[in-house]
Order: sequence, then structure tokens, then C-alpha cells
Amino acid sequence: MKKIIIAGPRGKMGSEAIKLVQSHEDMRLVACIDRKNNGKKLADIAELPNLDVPIYEDALECFSEIDADILIELTIPEQGYKHTKAAMEHGIRPVVGTTGFTEEQIDELSWLASERKIGCIIAPNFAIGAVLMMKFSQMAAQYFPDVDIIEKHHDNKLDAPSGTAVKTAEMIKESREYKKQGHADEKETYPGARGADYDGMRIHSVRLPGLVAHQEVIFGSPGQTLTIKHDSINRASFMEGIKLATDKVMEIQEVIYGLENVL
Amino acid sequence: MKKIIIAGPRGKMGSEAIKLVQSHEDMRLVACIDRKNNGKKLADIAELPNLDVPIYEDALECFSEIDADILIELTIPEQGYKHTKAAMEHGIRPVVGTTGFTEEQIDELSWLASERKIGCIIAPNFAIGAVLMMKFSQMAAQYFPDVDIIEKHHDNKLDAPSGTAVKTAEMIKESREYKKQGHADEKETYPGARGADYDGMRIHSVRLPGLVAHQEVIFGSPGQTLTIKHDSINRASFMEGIKLATDKVMEIQEVIYGLENVL
Amino acid sequence: MKKIIIAGPRGKMGSEAIKLVQSHEDMRLVACIDRKNNGKKLADIAELPNLDVPIYEDALECFSEIDADILIELTIPEQGYKHTKAAMEHGIRPVVGTTGFTEEQIDELSWLASERKIGCIIAPNFAIGAVLMMKFSQMAAQYFPDVDIIEKHHDNKLDAPSGTAVKTAEMIKESREYKKQGHADEKETYPGARGADYDGMRIHSVRLPGLVAHQEVIFGSPGQTLTIKHDSINRASFMEGIKLATDKVMEIQEVIYGLENVL
Amino acid sequence: MKKIIIAGPRGKMGSEAIKLVQSHEDMRLVACIDRKNNGKKLADIAELPNLDVPIYEDALECFSEIDADILIELTIPEQGYKHTKAAMEHGIRPVVGTTGFTEEQIDELSWLASERKIGCIIAPNFAIGAVLMMKFSQMAAQYFPDVDIIEKHHDNKLDAPSGTAVKTAEMIKESREYKKQGHADEKETYPGARGADYDGMRIHSVRLPGLVAHQEVIFGSPGQTLTIKHDSINRASFMEGIKLATDKVMEIQEVIYGLENVL
Repeated sequence: MKKIIIAGPRGKMGSEAIKLVQSHEDMRLVACIDRKNNGKKLADIAELPNLDVPIYEDALECFSEIDADILIELTIPEQGYKHTKAAMEHGIRPVVGTTGFTEEQIDELSWLASERKIGCIIAPNFAIGAVLMMKFSQMAAQYFPDVDIIEKHHDNKLDAPSGTAVKTAEMIKESREYKKQGHADEKETYPGARGADYDGMRIHSVRLPGLVAHQEVIFGSPGQTLTIKHDSINRASFMEGIKLATDKVMEIQEVIYGLENVL
Repeated sequence: MKKIIIAGPRGKMGSEAIKLVQSHEDMRLVACIDRKNNGKKLADIAELPNLDVPIYEDALECFSEIDADILIELTIPEQGYKHTKAAMEHGIRPVVGTTGFTEEQIDELSWLASERKIGCIIAPNFAIGAVLMMKFSQMAAQYFPDVDIIEKHHDNKLDAPSGTAVKTAEMIKESREYKKQGHADEKETYPGARGADYDGMRIHSVRLPGLVAHQEVIFGSPGQTLTIKHDSINRASFMEGIKLATDKVMEIQEVIYGLENVL
Repeated sequence: MKKIIIAGPRGKMGSEAIKLVQSHEDMRLVACIDRKNNGKKLADIAELPNLDVPIYEDALECFSEIDADILIELTIPEQGYKHTKAAMEHGIRPVVGTTGFTEEQIDELSWLASERKIGCIIAPNFAIGAVLMMKFSQMAAQYFPDVDIIEKHHDNKLDAPSGTAVKTAEMIKESREYKKQGHADEKETYPGARGADYDGMRIHSVRLPGLVAHQEVIFGSPGQTLTIKHDSINRASFMEGIKLATDKVMEIQEVIYGLENVL
Repeated sequence: MKKIIIAGPRGKMGSEAIKLVQSHEDMRLVACIDRKNNGKKLADIAELPNLDVPIYEDALECFSEIDADILIELTIPEQGYKHTKAAMEHGIRPVVGTTGFTEEQIDELSWLASERKIGCIIAPNFAIGAVLMMKFSQMAAQYFPDVDIIEKHHDNKLDAPSGTAVKTAEMIKESREYKKQGHADEKETYPGARGADYDGMRIHSVRLPGLVAHQEVIFGSPGQTLTIKHDSINRASFMEGIKLATDKVMEIQEVIYGLENVL
């Protein structure tokens, strides 16, 4: 039985994480860290489930008073780093969905991990499907240098291409022999038709209402194409990755960055 | 029984057209027009099927000597127009896959059609599937103004977007209320990511080995997307459209331009 | 300005309908019919928006007291029919998402519509995208008799194939010439591989977590395939259809059954 | 420079293999083994390219007279085994696309490989894309036990599901924890709708004109799906795999069965 503390229980990720813990028999929620509601129970808060679990505003107080195995950290970077470090100092293993730690911070946590012989997993993306898509794409690119990425998102998204598409292209670049794709003399009669150029490969960003978060990576070779596609419709997609990380974090004595290094 | 003349029997389209005629009991090949091989039979030419059908280099001679109902015209524009006009003057109904006729030429043929009470069908694209894709897209755009077009072709294609994609966008524009799509403040971190802008909608061109000719038109609306997709792998896709046109051309007394007006 | 009454405001569809009315300037919510909360305002109910709009338990009382143009009826069949009929008797035009009316009931409503010169629209499916998919499939089947339907739903769905898939197959059957598809001698080495047989065409039902409601209709012909695909991720997809129906119902003096007859 | 003998030069695979060798500077065709045309040159045969390369009917004679590095074996199983064994006895490394060897035969070849310190690669499927699809599917199944396979082929195919679909399911089974998929109480209103049951997962076979050979493997998990898809349009898809095998076979001293073990 793993005793779990969740930091950020009222966020979208946090509320899913509570459901996750509730639905697994080998996990038990023992406390939450929130920036308000100190001293209350989850059951006291309208939007939280009816559980007799204490809420702390002060992480150090929480870690001192509560006997826990794992911290699931889902707040913002500034808080996140403090929580993560303090947890490790108290022998509590962090599983961190908060992104934006600096390299220096990660080094510090790594030193702490080896010092205390305790694991820590930090992942910018806990959707196992997305992580597998990137990993498989990197593997396929060894054999198929021709690749286009099409990512599709709702039309409220500001940036194009998506972070996942750029990350995928970066990972492909590591295993792909450079190739300027398409016909040497190809011509865009409407500019932008051929998409963004990333190291010779092409990225296309579709934005439409009715979409959520989708990506397909298409590899072409004479006579065949291989497509790896991920469709995400809500944050439930992160929970299996967090579950996997809570299992794995108990077995390691280092900091692992990126879910792809857990799979 | 429709008696058929085929112009351009040694081209890729022409050789498919011969197979088409051979495989339908209500059609019979009575002559071919070719720019060489005058006076020979199809059976004399290594690359053509073993048929006792005469070849003419001179279209007028062919139309005078041969009793035919339909000319399937699959040569180049210059020849194509001459053949088409001459056929109609001889009471032979043309089904024309050659593109590139001028408006003036089409007017002339229309006048001829009403004068002689004879049909003629000219189509830049005989793939029924592609034509339906465009027609359905035009219909859907009345209800869904948000639309992205993704077209995918082999990487020897020079122009992007494809002619079919541009034609589809033109047809959509006719029924769609103008909308500048995407978030008002969206930003391309890699230029071209959001594709080509055509009247506010977006067109994306994928070029990869292993692809032939593919297009999908995606309409988005809150909570749903509707996608219309056409995949073509070889010229056999044109034959059903030519068959349909040979049936229809017997019933009309005008020039119809575009297979969409036959469907 | 169309004055709207919504029946069933606390259901999933109802709460979306309230948002719909609120987001359009040419619509105004004037009352709700609910099976509890009589005499209260929407603002009094925690789960409803903060609006000074009265709630009635008795539909007749509501229709007598409130000046309205349209009833959006989203309750259960038994209530639905009573509400619909009473609304028409009070000169209020119904847009009905409740399904399950008998033929007799629809006849009665049709008689009432012509008597009172008032419109009524009843639709089992208000997702315009789904309705267009079915309509386009029916059109395409005239040219392509070979068709497989693949529908994909979440794995809590009990029945296979889905109602939409069967309805699509029925509509295709009306325009398709009968054909027993596949090779005459084809053999299933694992039973069920070729899916369900509906009038010679094939229907396949995929059930997986992570899916919501998806369907693709694939037409095949030598050298080409045409695919029409609808993806629905939540009930927002119904709202555009309801909006369309509220516009249309003001212009007609009959009962229209099925959104496809409005498009 | 690798000196290559091709067995079966007039078959569909063989003629693609000749093109493959011609298009790579590090490969040279030195002989062919055919069941007719003994003593002739490729240039003498109408359907073969204009090359001054000898044809042998007797494989032993060929291997004795010709200095070669690799045999690309693309005939039928009976011949294939004899050729493969004889090649190894002459120090020529076989790359074998012929399938249907018995386990005993493979053992014999393995013994020969270690004896002679020579490599041999036998692969039932040389399409790298298909092999990667299977490999990735096996990897993904560790994390996602819910999986449906949809395979699509032309409507002249006799067996359903396809051999590749069954092989994929077998490979998934090895890494997937058994799960009976779908709702426990699900019901087929039309039998076969839910496809074939293979160890609790589902396989669906689509057969339509206009298709060639396609497969998608869909993994579902709360909030997300991961899809791995392979589309093959002609035999060119096998050539990259054969090329890879000719490189690899020079480096090994054993028999490798299955391209997945080379990747």
C-alpha cells in the first residue's frame, strides 16, 4: 500500500489524480497540499470528494506530520521545486508533473536522490500514448528519413506548431539522417502550403473547433507509409502515466526526467 | 450497344479506357485515333490488345468512315479540341478527359451541341470519388465555416497545393461565409506551420514517397468534426467516371463541363 | 428575437441548450419546464446559471402564462409528447430532441401543424455532422455499391452496431443497388472478422476506452476509396443543429422529422 | 561492392529486386537462377532488363562458377530451401523472401551457419513498415491492454483476417496481459459486428475494391488512443527491407528469422 500526498488537489490534474488514487487498491491518499484551506479536510471543500483527509498549506509541516511514501506534485514551478526538494529531504518520493525546472534544480535533485537513495520522476508529459508516439517515431526515423508531422488542435491554441510536435521533431532529428524532403524544384503557389521546415522535415498545424489534441507522424518510403497517431481528448490521458510513475519511483534511487525513460 | 472511338489509345488513360470498353457488354470499340500507326490494327501494335480494330491518324477520315456513337478523347488540348469539334459535326458525342480548353472553345462547342442536338461531356477530373469529395465539401461548408484541407502526394510532385485542393477551396468558398480561421492572436514559431491561407481557410501539402494522390477536407464545429477523404492509387479511378459520362452523354443535347454536373 | 422555453434544463442536453440560448443575441430564454423546482427561478438552483427565469412543473401553466415562440423539448418521450402537443395548441413551435414518438403521435402532431399553421421539428440526432455523414453516404452509394462502415465507441456501450451505424446502413440501402460484397469464396478463419452483414455491406464495431463516438463510411471502387467520417467528442455537437432547427421552425407550417430534411 | 545472385528474376518480387540492385552503387548483379532460360543472358529475355548477366537453371552450377557474396532467394519453398542450403555450402550468404521452411530445415541452416561462420536472413515479410508496426504494437500493448486491429484489403482476398493481422495479434499477445475487451454485457444486434475475438482483443477485416494492403492497430486508454498504421500500395515496399538484409547478412554468422530481429 503506497501512501500518497497530492499537491494541487483543486487543479484539473489534481482532481484527476485524486480519482486515480481512489480507484486503485494499492494506493491511499493521506494528505493534500493546497495554497488555501489549511487545517480543513477534503470533505469540507465543496469541489473535493468526501474524504477525511487533511489539507496543509505548509508543505514542510505536511511532510513532518504525515507518514507518506510518494508526493504527486501538480502545482506551479516555483512551488513545485520547493515541494519536490522538501519531500526528498523527508524521504518521500516525488512524482512531478510540474514542468519548468532549471537544469541546476534538476542537478540539485539528482544529488539529493543519490545522497538519500531515493527516487524521483519528473515528466513534462504523462500521456503514455504521446510519449510512445515520440519514441516510436524516433525508432522509425532510422529506417525512413522522409517524415511529415501533422498536429491538430482546437482553435484557441496560440502557438503553432505545438510543443509536442517540436519535441517529436527534435527526437526524430537525433536518429534521422538529414534529408531535405520533397522535390528539389517544388514550388508553393500559395505560401505556407508545404508547412514548417524543421531540419528538412515538414510540420503542419491544423486548428479547428471540435478538435482537442491530436498528432500523426507519417513516414513514407517507396510503396508504403507508416503512421503513428495519438489522439487525446481529456486529462484522463495523463493518469496512467502518473500511475506508472508511482510504481516505478519506489524502485529507483535517482532522478528520471521524461516518461520515455520509464517506459 | 454504344460504338466507341478512343483517341490516344497508347497513353496511360487510353489503355485503361480500352480495358473499360472491353469489360462492358454494352460498349464496343470500333476505332482508335493515334498520332502514328495509320492503317494498322490494334493487334499489330505490341503494347495494345489483340483486337481487329482500325487505327486512324486523321480524325476526319475516321469520323467519316466509321459509324460511331461516342468519342472518348484522351489526347492533348490542341488535338483534343479539333477532335471534339469534328466529332460533333459528324454526330458523334464526345466524352473529353483532355483539359485546357478556352472559354471561347467551350462556347463554340455549346453552340454546336444545341445546333446539332447532341451531347458532349468535358471533365478535368473523371475520378467520381474526388468529384463527390468536392461536392460534399461545398455542401458541408454551408453549415461548418471552419475547414482545413490536407492533401498528400508522392514527393515527385512539383506544385503545392495540388490542383484538386485549390479547386476544392474555390468550391467551398462559393458556399462558405468568409471566416478568418484560428485564434486571432495565433503565432507561427516555425513559419509555414499553419499552411497556406485561402480565403481564411488553411491548406496543407504533404509530400512523401509511398503516397500517390490523397486529400482530406476536415470541417470543425464545437464538439465534432466531419472529414471527407479521397484516396486514389491509380488511373483505374477515372474509369467509372468515364463510363458514367458515356451513359449520360447519350441522353443530353448540351455541353456539360465538370463531372459534378453529371452526378 | 425568438423567445425560448426549455424543457429539461438540468439534463446534459438541457444545460448545453441554455448555454446556446445565452450565446446568441437573437434568442432569449423566457422559462423552463422541470419536473421539480416549481415557482423557483433558475438563479435559485445551484447547478443552473444565475438567470431570473421562472421554472414551471406544469407545462400547460407555463404555456398559458408565458409569451414564447419556441419550445426546446429535451425530456423523456412520455413527457415529451405531452409538452410538444400542448405547445402547438398554444401557438408555440416545438424543436424536439426527445426520440421515441410513435407514428400515431407524429400523425397527430402533423394534423395539428396544418390546422394551426405552425411548424414543429423532431430530430433523433441534432449533430449536423452526423446527419451530413449519413446524407453524403446515401448520395455516394448511388455510384459506389461497395461500402464498409466502421463505428468506434467507448467500451461502456452495450449495443453493437451503434444506432447511427444501422441508420446509415438503412439510408445507404435506399440508394444502393444490392450487392453481396467481398470475394464469393472468402473465408473467415476467425469468425466475425468480416463484421456484420447488412444487406450485403459490412459493419464493424470498435469498442475501446479513450473513444467517444466516431464513425467512418468507406466506399471502394477500382483505384480509389472515398471516406466520410464523423467524430463527436461531446454534446456541444448537438447545439448547432438545435440552433438551425430554431431558425427553420419559424418558417414552416408542418412537422419535419429528421434534421436531414432541414439541411 | 556486394556481388549478388537473384533466384526468381521473372517473378514480381524478382523484377523489383533487380531494380534494387541496379539502383545501388554498392551492389552488382552477377547471375540469376531461373527455372528456364539456361545459358542465356538477361538481355536475351524480353521481360528482363538489358543486362549482360548469365542465367542458370542449375543452382549448384551457378554457385560453382560465379564468384558471389549474396543470394537473394525469391522462388518457391521447395526450390528455396535447396538454393539456400547450397549457397551457404558455397560461402554465399542467403537473403530469403521465400516462406514455408520447416523448423527442421531452419535448424539445419543454423548449424550450417555456425559451421561455416556465415550469415543467413529469412523473412516472411520484408516490408520494414509492416514489421515496425508489429514491433511497436507489441511494445505498446505492455501499457495498453485494450486493442482493436482493423485490416483493409482489396476484395479479391480470400482469407480474413489477413496473415499480418493474425501475426500482429500473436505478437501483442506475448506482451499483453489477457483482457476480455468491451462491456461485459455487450450485445451484437447484428452478429459479427464486434469482429473476430483473438485472446480477448478484436480484429476487423474490411474488403473493398480500391484498397491494396492496409492495417491499423488502435490502442485505447482513458482519455487517449494510440494508433499505428501501415499502408502498402505495391511490392516496392519490400525492397528497403531486402536492402537492409543484404547489409546485415554480411556482418552476422548465424541464421536470423524475421526482419524484426534485424531492425
